[in-house]
Amino acid sequence: MLVNCVAYQDGKKLADITKEQISDYVERKDCFVWVALYEPGPEELREMQVEFGLHELAVEDASHGHQRPKIEEYGDSLFAVLHTVEQEKTPSGDDELLTGEVAVFVGRNYVLSVRQHTQMGFAAVRGRAEREPELLQHGSGFVFYALMDNVVDRYFPILDGLETELEAIEEQIFVRNTARSNIESLYALKQKLMVLKHAVDPLMEATGRLYGGRVPQICAGMGEYFRDVYDHLHRIHLAIEGIRDMLTTAIQVNLGMISLGESEVTKKLAAWAAIIAVPTMVAGIYGMNFKHMPELDWTYGYAFAVAVMVIIDVWLYFNFKKVKWL
Amino acid sequence: MLVNCVAYQDGKKLADITKEQISDYVERKDCFVWVALYEPGPEELREMQVEFGLHELAVEDASHGHQRPKIEEYGDSLFAVLHTVEQEKTPSGDDELLTGEVAVFVGRNYVLSVRQHTQMGFAAVRGRAEREPELLQHGSGFVFYALMDNVVDRYFPILDGLETELEAIEEQIFVRNTARSNIESLYALKQKLMVLKHAVDPLMEATGRLYGGRVPQICAGMGEYFRDVYDHLHRIHLAIEGIRDMLTTAIQVNLGMISLGESEVTKKLAAWAAIIAVPTMVAGIYGMNFKHMPELDWTYGYAFAVAVMVIIDVWLYFNFKKVKWL
Amino acid sequence: MLVNCVAYQDGKKLADITKEQISDYVERKDCFVWVALYEPGPEELREMQVEFGLHELAVEDASHGHQRPKIEEYGDSLFAVLHTVEQEKTPSGDDELLTGEVAVFVGRNYVLSVRQHTQMGFAAVRGRAEREPELLQHGSGFVFYALMDNVVDRYFPILDGLETELEAIEEQIFVRNTARSNIESLYALKQKLMVLKHAVDPLMEATGRLYGGRVPQICAGMGEYFRDVYDHLHRIHLAIEGIRDMLTTAIQVNLGMISLGESEVTKKLAAWAAIIAVPTMVAGIYGMNFKHMPELDWTYGYAFAVAVMVIIDVWLYFNFKKVKWL
Amino acid sequence: MLVNCVAYQDGKKLADITKEQISDYVERKDCFVWVALYEPGPEELREMQVEFGLHELAVEDASHGHQRPKIEEYGDSLFAVLHTVEQEKTPSGDDELLTGEVAVFVGRNYVLSVRQHTQMGFAAVRGRAEREPELLQHGSGFVFYALMDNVVDRYFPILDGLETELEAIEEQIFVRNTARSNIESLYALKQKLMVLKHAVDPLMEATGRLYGGRVPQICAGMGEYFRDVYDHLHRIHLAIEGIRDMLTTAIQVNLGMISLGESEVTKKLAAWAAIIAVPTMVAGIYGMNFKHMPELDWTYGYAFAVAVMVIIDVWLYFNFKKVKWL
Amino acid sequence: MLVNCVAYQDGKKLADITKEQISDYVERKDCFVWVALYEPGPEELREMQVEFGLHELAVEDASHGHQRPKIEEYGDSLFAVLHTVEQEKTPSGDDELLTGEVAVFVGRNYVLSVRQHTQMGFAAVRGRAEREPELLQHGSGFVFYALMDNVVDRYFPILDGLETELEAIEEQIFVRNTARSNIESLYALKQKLMVLKHAVDPLMEATGRLYGGRVPQICAGMGEYFRDVYDHLHRIHLAIEGIRDMLTTAIQVNLGMISLGESEVTKKLAAWAAIIAVPTMVAGIYGMNFKHMPELDWTYGYAFAVAVMVIIDVWLYFNFKKVKWL
Repeated sequence: MLVNCVAYQDGKKLADITKEQISDYVERKDCFVWVALYEPGPEELREMQVEFGLHELAVEDASHGHQRPKIEEYGDSLFAVLHTVEQEKTPSGDDELLTGEVAVFVGRNYVLSVRQHTQMGFAAVRGRAEREPELLQHGSGFVFYALMDNVVDRYFPILDGLETELEAIEEQIFVRNTARSNIESLYALKQKLMVLKHAVDPLMEATGRLYGGRVPQICAGMGEYFRDVYDHLHRIHLAIEGIRDMLTTAIQVNLGMISLGESEVTKKLAAWAAIIAVPTMVAGIYGMNFKHMPELDWTYGYAFAVAVMVIIDVWLYFNFKKVKWL
Repeated sequence: MLVNCVAYQDGKKLADITKEQISDYVERKDCFVWVALYEPGPEELREMQVEFGLHELAVEDASHGHQRPKIEEYGDSLFAVLHTVEQEKTPSGDDELLTGEVAVFVGRNYVLSVRQHTQMGFAAVRGRAEREPELLQHGSGFVFYALMDNVVDRYFPILDGLETELEAIEEQIFVRNTARSNIESLYALKQKLMVLKHAVDPLMEATGRLYGGRVPQICAGMGEYFRDVYDHLHRIHLAIEGIRDMLTTAIQVNLGMISLGESEVTKKLAAWAAIIAVPTMVAGIYGMNFKHMPELDWTYGYAFAVAVMVIIDVWLYFNFKKVKWL
Repeated sequence: MLVNCVAYQDGKKLADITKEQISDYVERKDCFVWVALYEPGPEELREMQVEFGLHELAVEDASHGHQRPKIEEYGDSLFAVLHTVEQEKTPSGDDELLTGEVAVFVGRNYVLSVRQHTQMGFAAVRGRAEREPELLQHGSGFVFYALMDNVVDRYFPILDGLETELEAIEEQIFVRNTARSNIESLYALKQKLMVLKHAVDPLMEATGRLYGGRVPQICAGMGEYFRDVYDHLHRIHLAIEGIRDMLTTAIQVNLGMISLGESEVTKKLAAWAAIIAVPTMVAGIYGMNFKHMPELDWTYGYAFAVAVMVIIDVWLYFNFKKVKWL
Repeated sequence: MLVNCVAYQDGKKLADITKEQISDYVERKDCFVWVALYEPGPEELREMQVEFGLHELAVEDASHGHQRPKIEEYGDSLFAVLHTVEQEKTPSGDDELLTGEVAVFVGRNYVLSVRQHTQMGFAAVRGRAEREPELLQHGSGFVFYALMDNVVDRYFPILDGLETELEAIEEQIFVRNTARSNIESLYALKQKLMVLKHAVDPLMEATGRLYGGRVPQICAGMGEYFRDVYDHLHRIHLAIEGIRDMLTTAIQVNLGMISLGESEVTKKLAAWAAIIAVPTMVAGIYGMNFKHMPELDWTYGYAFAVAVMVIIDVWLYFNFKKVKWL
Repeated sequence: MLVNCVAYQDGKKLADITKEQISDYVERKDCFVWVALYEPGPEELREMQVEFGLHELAVEDASHGHQRPKIEEYGDSLFAVLHTVEQEKTPSGDDELLTGEVAVFVGRNYVLSVRQHTQMGFAAVRGRAEREPELLQHGSGFVFYALMDNVVDRYFPILDGLETELEAIEEQIFVRNTARSNIESLYALKQKLMVLKHAVDPLMEATGRLYGGRVPQICAGMGEYFRDVYDHLHRIHLAIEGIRDMLTTAIQVNLGMISLGESEVTKKLAAWAAIIAVPTMVAGIYGMNFKHMPELDWTYGYAFAVAVMVIIDVWLYFNFKKVKWL
């Protein structure tokens, strides 16, 4: 689906144009065309391939989807795949991270973005770019930066969400009887973390080649901007690694808490078993049928036996309390 | 076994030729020969070595098998070893991954593929190549790409299978009493993952040297195609690492679930032990043979004793319910 | 909030100046201005941006905060983000590490430091710099070094604190019944360690580019000083990794101690169960109501039965003692 | 002990010579001497040092032994240390890996091998070399290759042995009641793996510098041969890492099986405890000495009580069977 | 404390000189001064700084101590920090590794060593150097090598000690009831290992820059010697990593043994519980007070009951023996 198709010159919008007009504008010097597609059919992509002269392999990647994030040079043009990450409620009420894809083709005088499996549009990016003509003058390279910046900025709330989740688990982790829910939360968090990691890490690596030494022609003179994107990605990367490290520790700590929990149950079991078993033993002894058992004939024999039981049990109880078994 | 032996010129098939004719065609300029062998004997390989002037060490590798995937330069020619990975049912009904090998010798005007321990043929590759003469014109380098692309594409369904398996285990992992089957599945998945990893990782590394800076002459001008193969391999590599990471976590989580399971059994054991032990103790007390035990003479002594037992047990039962031990 | 604004020449303080005068002094050759801000509003930062001609993206980073530590070149000037780490008591009496941020803009003839979320001022740095005119003569590069040195030096007491904490835990780890508090301490230590690690590691990496090969103009001729800062950071980095490694081991060892603890409880439980169960069994036997039980009629039958019980129990007790179950 | 001392020219054996003659032959152009020592005394090594002009430090390394595998250049000559690995039965019937050492000094016209702590000789290498004069013509560099190739080829059966051992353990790992022997086998396998790893990894690294870019003069023109050795070492390296990875998983899985095993014992214990405790409780109740217990006077009271016990127990038994506790 | 102060020329000792004479000798061509200090006061260091013209930052490092091992260039001179590692008995009889520091300043014509927190002197190094004038002729660079070599050689007995300790633990690890002492030994070994690792790893890295490509002027022409030191450090490094790896495995295996141990206790507990509980149940049944219990009146009723108990118990005992629960 064609979302937008606009021609720009000198940082200003020239006109909304039709698909057929693209090739006219692309030929003009200092003019570039910015096209946005949403889940296009093979037909539509084929048309764009012809209009912009896109490389076979890049178009194939854009139409198949399920690429890893990457930035590739095809001659003078760039082909980038970015992952969007969105949080959604599953029917069962849990949060889930969904991955969408944005393929971007950038040439000297065109930008073509192809969105798939994501609701996130780039209207805001277009709006901001049009309000800053002095930046938009940089041409298609700036639009490429603006798109990347936008996608990357949207990772931050996701990351914040994961950090909040980790903190929530950390608060629960030493609370008794929460081990089962903790372990489930830790695993779920790890799953989400991996989704974000798979979106961020390859992109970070690729972005690192857009500034510094030899950079693609299109990105020339915008090094500080792409370094800024890299920097954001690197920050997210470090945060992810930090969470991953804490998660591993948290899982092990949780294992320890489970064992401790069982240990405490065993102690309680042992203590109460003793408290019940001792009177049972005493009662058993006075339940023997020997002819000659002097205590049985005492007037206060029964009271004495019960007293023995109670005294031993009280003594046991306080001893177990003292050693924290109860 | 000789599967195929065809001469090509200008992207078009010239003729099916015999082994003896190979040397004639190889000498012609702009003409190349594409030979496919299936589990050849030492004799057959020896013949090919002579026809194409293959290097001693490369032929040795191809005939011994059990190589790691690799791409080596011998002067102007290339020698590649690729692993095929196929899923098979074992007699006991489990899936198993089988590794086969394809050795490929590529020179300026020949391609020789040697398949071993695998049913996967390359008829489809030959068919596709012959239908695309404009690509086949690139010569032996393109055939090499097409063979690699085909082998690598066949890793994807295997990878999908492993991802599906992981998801299936993840759904089971927090279900009670599945720990034993989970742990077996996790280990089996890990084994399969390692098979795929051993096929993919060394090949990825080797493919990375077929584009970009200095590349072998045969691959010149096809950088974007080999980068595409690299990209696919890298994607599989990342997915494998992701599964591996989740597997490690899943195994630890499963350990936690086992401990939790035992903890719950211990709690149940403790609770029921208490519920049975208390009446036994009370009964023991009234089973003592003291002369003077007033309760024994009460008309409702028996009922009273039983009532005491029942009341304590009911109280215990609900308390244990409340703290989730039952 | 403007903390300080001073102009220097030839290593000596010229004058405290107002914000408006900055541009005058910055234009003078061999003169530089050193400005310190504390949690400035967007207004204040905007002014500074104009006075010093700071880059848009750097100013944005300084005002947003929550950057990772980094050192970036913008043309001839540098932009650095440093993390301060301070120990604070939480209301619940635990120690906590708080992260603050210092953004530093350094140009040929200005230094602008922007402190956020931290009480740590740089009065001491200014004082020391003013007392060493021969060093201050190096200009803004030296001030930059002095600021970094000061921030990094303040990591050492934090690190010492963490090492002391680890030692305290190590002394407790093999003591019985401390597993729960140990595991909590280990996790808390890990959390603090990660805070320090996130401050140190990225900064170390960045500092490594300030000496040796190609260095930013501003740092030229001060290589040994920046190498010294790098060296300190590297030392902290190694110490952190060492603690991290020991922590992992300590957590596993603690898990072992928990299991051992439970094992010992189980042994005790088993031993006492036997000691109580045997007399109960004997008593049960002599509590049977058979007509013909010769022992029941013996004069010393009761004494005999009790003796049997006691002898078996004493024997059991010493045996359990011998095998360390008691 | 001098094993062999032979002079070669143009790929053909000239003569067996004495130690004293070495210097004569070494001076001749196109002639080289190949000496093999077995556990030489310091005297013998000293002689060789003089004959061949070996470097002090290299001779020291060869006589001390216990070096890590390495390949070092001393001017135009090479000094290599290789580890041999042999499997031996210990008196207690277990397999053990023993490490021996081969130090090789290679100059333009000599090869000196010094074997220590190993029975493996190089007679086969010498035989093969003498049968292939066209290769032996390459001179001392080829002999060096042949020695390395021989040592490396002998790692493969060791590796196969370790893989077979892992498979044997994997078959046992999910079998009940094998945890103790599994854990011992896993540890023993890990120990052997480390022995092989210490032989292979440093050598692989060193061999990687014998082909490709700048190579020592002696190895010039033989790049494909040394790459082949590297390739074998890399294959073993990958296999070792694979086994190491599976071992780690296997140890964790085994831990899980131990916990599962205990869990099952606990369940059985709990089930049988219930089955025995219930009749005991019932019996206890009817063993009370209340005057008024109507059941005691029933004609079938006893039968009734026993029936109650049996019915409850049968019910319990089948329930425990159903939930797999028995 | 000044330990030694000697001037050398052409590999021979000229004279013991006083501190004041140093500057005279340092000015002479081909002459160098070798000074050894032991825990000097700030005064003494200040003097040396003046005599030799040492860099401020290096002197600061030498006087503060607690540096990581490193080798730094200051112009033409080198500054090195080495860690000595000594084994000491603690009052409680355990071994402990103590770290000392040696700072070495090396210039074209001086060597200054500053020892701290260590008893290890360098008299032996001086003696050896003076006995080998042909090596001492190399000047200060050779002394530097000799000092490093000496420090590094002293790591080997420490390493051997750790390897012996690991072997001792490995022999204990599968012995029953040693888990607690094993776990303590493993942790103590890990602690010592980290001490050695912190001494070795950074030094290895630094030494790697003293041979091969661009080396400091002072070390020129001595590449093989410094490579030898590097080689020793690398060997120790690999051994440490090997021990670390085995330690991790050993700790996990020990965890497994603890669980197995508990499992065995639980089995024993279960078995004996059954053996005691069954007679108790039987006795309970014949202790019931039913009027009509035919067995009670049998002449051999009692013998029969006891026989039933014994038979069941014998049967249980052998069954438990068979399944290895006893």
